[in-house]
Amino acid sequence: LRALHLDASGVRLLETAEPTPGADAARVRVSLAGVCDTDLQLARGYLGFRGVLGHEFVGVVDAGPDAWRGRRVVGEINFACGRCETCASGLGRHCPTRRVMGIQGADGAFADYVTVPVANLHAVPDGLPDERAVFAEPLAAAFEILEQVEIAAGSRCLVLGDGKLGLLVAQVLHEAGARVCAVGHHSDKLAILAARGIETQLASAWSPQPTEIVVEATGTPQGFATALAATRPRGTLVLKSTLAESPRVDLAPLVIHEIRVVGSRCGPFEPALRALAAGRIDVDPLVAERLPLARAPDALERAAAPGALKVLIDAH
Amino acid sequence: LRALHLDASGVRLLETAEPTPGADAARVRVSLAGVCDTDLQLARGYLGFRGVLGHEFVGVVDAGPDAWRGRRVVGEINFACGRCETCASGLGRHCPTRRVMGIQGADGAFADYVTVPVANLHAVPDGLPDERAVFAEPLAAAFEILEQVEIAAGSRCLVLGDGKLGLLVAQVLHEAGARVCAVGHHSDKLAILAARGIETQLASAWSPQPTEIVVEATGTPQGFATALAATRPRGTLVLKSTLAESPRVDLAPLVIHEIRVVGSRCGPFEPALRALAAGRIDVDPLVAERLPLARAPDALERAAAPGALKVLIDAH
Repeated sequence: LRALHLDASGVRLLETAEPTPGADAARVRVSLAGVCDTDLQLARGYLGFRGVLGHEFVGVVDAGPDAWRGRRVVGEINFACGRCETCASGLGRHCPTRRVMGIQGADGAFADYVTVPVANLHAVPDGLPDERAVFAEPLAAAFEILEQVEIAAGSRCLVLGDGKLGLLVAQVLHEAGARVCAVGHHSDKLAILAARGIETQLASAWSPQPTEIVVEATGTPQGFATALAATRPRGTLVLKSTLAESPRVDLAPLVIHEIRVVGSRCGPFEPALRALAAGRIDVDPLVAERLPLARAPDALERAAAPGALKVLIDAH
Repeated sequence: LRALHLDASGVRLLETAEPTPGADAARVRVSLAGVCDTDLQLARGYLGFRGVLGHEFVGVVDAGPDAWRGRRVVGEINFACGRCETCASGLGRHCPTRRVMGIQGADGAFADYVTVPVANLHAVPDGLPDERAVFAEPLAAAFEILEQVEIAAGSRCLVLGDGKLGLLVAQVLHEAGARVCAVGHHSDKLAILAARGIETQLASAWSPQPTEIVVEATGTPQGFATALAATRPRGTLVLKSTLAESPRVDLAPLVIHEIRVVGSRCGPFEPALRALAAGRIDVDPLVAERLPLARAPDALERAAAPGALKVLIDAH
């Protein structure tokens, strides 16, 4: 088993023993995995994670319950205890003792194999290629917004950031019937959205106009203040970026304009898989590069290049 | 007309001409006015206001439309244009060109007379004494929370801060059926709530427990971080404090725990007046002192003393 391991000295590809899944878990032979900005932040010390990185993957169940063996799957990343009050209330993604694949207390998917609780598996629809199915996890995070905020048909939504997540969020809101404007720094990335009929603006030529719903997906410390300035009174600001930094924030406008800020993290896989299978979300132009697992350290480096889109790690 | 005027050199009691109300406005002979922390911040330069301070008052209409003359009134502080899109959508309190009594573009009530648009007047119920009616404005701000956040009977609410606003918020949430815990630094103030059957804790003996609804009313730069740490995953943090400072804020927990932050400012007067008239909210113990208008500069000084409760200015 090859695995991209993170410790205090950085990331290294190691050979380790193949995992034997416990009860209620499956061992998945990883086909493709995706590099997320969170992986890059973890590699820089965010959350102090030690272990195998990677939480976006598609693969085939190789050991585990009969019902799952041989099936092509993606997997939710929050491993909930299933027994606490939070889990009982249906918020397993927020279980206080959860482990999180490749992020906190559980090895991840930049490896030949990854172990995943059966409860976290989702079968990949036939006909949905691995290259698209591997986007299920980040796309689910975009769909999470629809679980949290009512998007009326025709409501104006501003998406700040044209990175991997911003491009998914803009498409999801557009598909949900919103009038989306996406703002970013890269005309080539914004063109991916324009091709879907989504209004785009280069940040250099843009100035904040009060908007009903604003999604902050810039991944930058100044993103929150920009988003706040662009949210209309009584409007909603969906905050997606997780940062190691603690920026200085003038909270007075939030109070004066009675703005609602909604933190948004992981989301539901099923609508993401359905949208991918139906071709309603275009992820093909989001792939920057595909590298073999043997070159996983390079994959992280490529993903860290300014403006890089999705780098995939091919474990076959 | 005596009026407490603020300019670059500070506050001064000046003699000025009596205002003549325009159409759709009333001149109110002020009976009592209340000092709010915002007045103190304005006096320190917050928002750059120049003019007569004061936005909490009760008085008698002295000039204006016949229907209002001679009536005892309180008044909403946001003077909306009534013609723009925001006003048309029912959000006059957020009118982008609004003037705000004693805060922005309109003279306030630390004076013998104040001019108020008729649309902003509310008649004070007979039998509700001035000493209680003068709390209509800050109490409306506490009631605003009920307009913004659904408070189910028995839901746990944490109120941080035992200042004037915190004491009103805790009572409003308690009356709404929530299980309130109020945390503050002053046992004498917390005792006001304990006498109403509200659970209280001294901040020095308290540590954050994840709570469904948290109201931040500390008026301090560190209040937001404390409130965030006390809000449970998917919980709601109502932010009441407006500060001149921009504190450093770690926003990652907001995203990771998918917390909803709701900025909350001015609120509806009618439920506040009804609650005061019915004796459901106890404001009598919140009055620290009552000074004549001639001593208005002293009143601001007294209100600025650490831990001071409501200082009233008696204009008669």
